[in-house]
Amino acid sequence: MARNGTQKSIDRAQEIHLTAAQIFFTKGYASTSLNDVANALAITKAGLYYYVEGKQDLLFQIMNLGLDSVKNEVLLPAQEITDAEARLKFTILNHARLAAGGNHAVVILSDEISALNFKQREKILQRRRIYFEFVRDTLVELEKQGKLHEIDITAATFTLLGMILWLARWFHSSGKLSVEKVCEDVCRMALRGLLREPQKI
Amino acid sequence: MARNGTQKSIDRAQEIHLTAAQIFFTKGYASTSLNDVANALAITKAGLYYYVEGKQDLLFQIMNLGLDSVKNEVLLPAQEITDAEARLKFTILNHARLAAGGNHAVVILSDEISALNFKQREKILQRRRIYFEFVRDTLVELEKQGKLHEIDITAATFTLLGMILWLARWFHSSGKLSVEKVCEDVCRMALRGLLREPQKI
Repeated sequence: MARNGTQKSIDRAQEIHLTAAQIFFTKGYASTSLNDVANALAITKAGLYYYVEGKQDLLFQIMNLGLDSVKNEVLLPAQEITDAEARLKFTILNHARLAAGGNHAVVILSDEISALNFKQREKILQRRRIYFEFVRDTLVELEKQGKLHEIDITAATFTLLGMILWLARWFHSSGKLSVEKVCEDVCRMALRGLLREPQKI
Repeated sequence: MARNGTQKSIDRAQEIHLTAAQIFFTKGYASTSLNDVANALAITKAGLYYYVEGKQDLLFQIMNLGLDSVKNEVLLPAQEITDAEARLKFTILNHARLAAGGNHAVVILSDEISALNFKQREKILQRRRIYFEFVRDTLVELEKQGKLHEIDITAATFTLLGMILWLARWFHSSGKLSVEKVCEDVCRMALRGLLREPQKI
């Protein structure tokens, strides 16, 4: 019973995050009030305060939600892969799946980092840095193995992440292109752009 | 004399656009008032109204400024290039130079399109479509020549533009990497990702 209650609370929190992300994205974070979020959820503002401390806290929670997905679905499983090329491929494909197939609003809201307070911002930046360094380290490893084209590694890491994150801005799964096909295309384009002799993708 | 007056007015308008872009970018468009812009320029709000009709009009002007640069420095000269591969290379390099070396705030503010009114939005989208179709047509031409890797052309066009526009978000010319080197790196990565046998870059 308590377990069900907890699960229900987690589901409710997630519903709040996803709905809020969508409204922040559509109306713009600065132009959205907690009232707008409460109205969309058909709850009272007091009811909403049970889950969030305020608008800034809600944005912080949404950003952490996005980073949780990247951690659990990309970073942690990728860290188990010994071969650097296979690890890079897994990372690109699975991060692309999140950006193209997941919640676009959550991905794009990560731009609103300046709306956070100092402590929240530092936490988000720290989490991002961990992921960035993980991708960068994989490219450094490939460079040492002589597999990487001559390129500045930092530029390569940012550009690669840009190719992936950009998916959330243009790709709509309702079109003729499937999530799977677009992720494979972006992955192939990235690997060919970076690696001297990429294995078949 | 009249000529000088006009030139002065154009310079002043440009100063207003660039300053406003920077404030919109730093504070967020929704959170910025015309008073903030007037204060930063050390002019009165009435003085500012001599140049702009309002905040929305100012955003619209800034977006057009960014699109003017792309048109004059990338699109028009690129259209003169007959060879598709040379045209693609020119397009990437010169657009990258604008995104990396130009005004980052202007590039990133293009995300604020939802803040425009219907008519303004349609105009901006139409201008963007013209450029998008130009890049896409170049890729179609390369595909017909058998020079392109197998890839969905629309996905390739969006991803390519994403790699370029992302530069405005991460690249700072104060770092150890020069604008020229980073643009060449991004251009090489893109051409290798797209073309079967890219010519030396």
